[in-house]
Amino acid sequence: MKQEKAVVVFSGGQDSTTCLFWALEQFAEVEAVTFDYGQRHALEVECAKAIAEELGIKHHVLDMSLIGQLAPSALTDTGIEVADGEYGGLPSTFVPGRNLLFFSFAGILARQIGAKHIVTGVSETDFSGYPDCRDSFVKSLNVTLNLAVDGQFVIHTPLMWLDKSQVWGLSDRLGKLDYVRTKTLTCYNGIQADGCGECPACRLRRKGLETFLGKKGGSTLPDGGSAEEVALP
Amino acid sequence: MKQEKAVVVFSGGQDSTTCLFWALEQFAEVEAVTFDYGQRHALEVECAKAIAEELGIKHHVLDMSLIGQLAPSALTDTGIEVADGEYGGLPSTFVPGRNLLFFSFAGILARQIGAKHIVTGVSETDFSGYPDCRDSFVKSLNVTLNLAVDGQFVIHTPLMWLDKSQVWGLSDRLGKLDYVRTKTLTCYNGIQADGCGECPACRLRRKGLETFLGKKGGSTLPDGGSAEEVALP
Repeated sequence: MKQEKAVVVFSGGQDSTTCLFWALEQFAEVEAVTFDYGQRHALEVECAKAIAEELGIKHHVLDMSLIGQLAPSALTDTGIEVADGEYGGLPSTFVPGRNLLFFSFAGILARQIGAKHIVTGVSETDFSGYPDCRDSFVKSLNVTLNLAVDGQFVIHTPLMWLDKSQVWGLSDRLGKLDYVRTKTLTCYNGIQADGCGECPACRLRRKGLETFLGKKGGSTLPDGGSAEEVALP
Repeated sequence: MKQEKAVVVFSGGQDSTTCLFWALEQFAEVEAVTFDYGQRHALEVECAKAIAEELGIKHHVLDMSLIGQLAPSALTDTGIEVADGEYGGLPSTFVPGRNLLFFSFAGILARQIGAKHIVTGVSETDFSGYPDCRDSFVKSLNVTLNLAVDGQFVIHTPLMWLDKSQVWGLSDRLGKLDYVRTKTLTCYNGIQADGCGECPACRLRRKGLETFLGKKGGSTLPDGGSAEEVALP
């Protein structure tokens, strides 16, 4: 794969940034694609742009605002009951199955830019109830994409079977733990790096980091230092 | 299926209009979805709207202009060579594999409106080199869609193995041959019904109609009448 080209589905968060560094290690050429669909925080797209620019990576930002047309709130007389809270806390543009759309766009983009490989940071391990993050879905989409365009694309999911502490482990092995910790945005409240510390995304991220650093032999967090000179507040 | 709901991918052309009538025969409830992506003729979308309105069918027109972002012309430094004429005669928004996007949107829409069935008029028989019209692609997408949303959708392709004369035969059996002939738009030059008569779409459509009417026992066209009181100019 060293001579080949990949496109990374890139949100500017911990997972996809780790995947970006993984891809830079694996492939001769790497481009990134970000889907702008009215995220909770426009800052997410800005964060992705800043990282891509800093790393000198060609970055495609695709306007996906049209998926809002498929949001439950946009369709009247939907004929299905949406249980209270099923989409609770999600932005109004949340669309079940949206990775089908995103990865389809990424696949067709890959064809257009001559990339054989597509990398995404989806994971079944921290699987939060979304079927479009499962391994079986991704593999099926890979076949469908190749049939759709008579192609031989390969979708890579380096994080599929890793938990959050193992994702930190991967970024550490790539020599990028500190970069990922300080430059990415995971927090639901739009705060970069270690985030607000309170939202579910921050807690999951922090717990993973603590676990990884603990296993690595540094003292546990939050009180005290750690390996890699990472200190959490 | 008689008690169930279907959504028909509907362009206002001969094939999808025939599918619409087929679906009306098969399902208790039918809705239609049209993708507006900068067609050669805006008239195509208008034609679809008019038919849906006349038939009293709930019609979703989804703005797909964003696929233009994936058109070869929109991406610089594409890394692939586009042979002269590969996209010759196609609108600048033509995107290889676009049925992957359209059918994915249709699938997610089906989920949102509570339709179990999705009907599309793609056909391998008059297959013009597009892999995303093949039966294998549609079946694979069906599986992928179901995995993406944990669903049990069924994609129907009633025209998959029919040639154009058999498609006319189907509309005749449904009692809608004359409706399809006079109300739909197939012509590349944007002329409804029998069209310009000169473009490849018109010739294919006309040849199929002549063959069907000939087999049915009417006199052949263009000189003379036919079964169903259809007369071509």
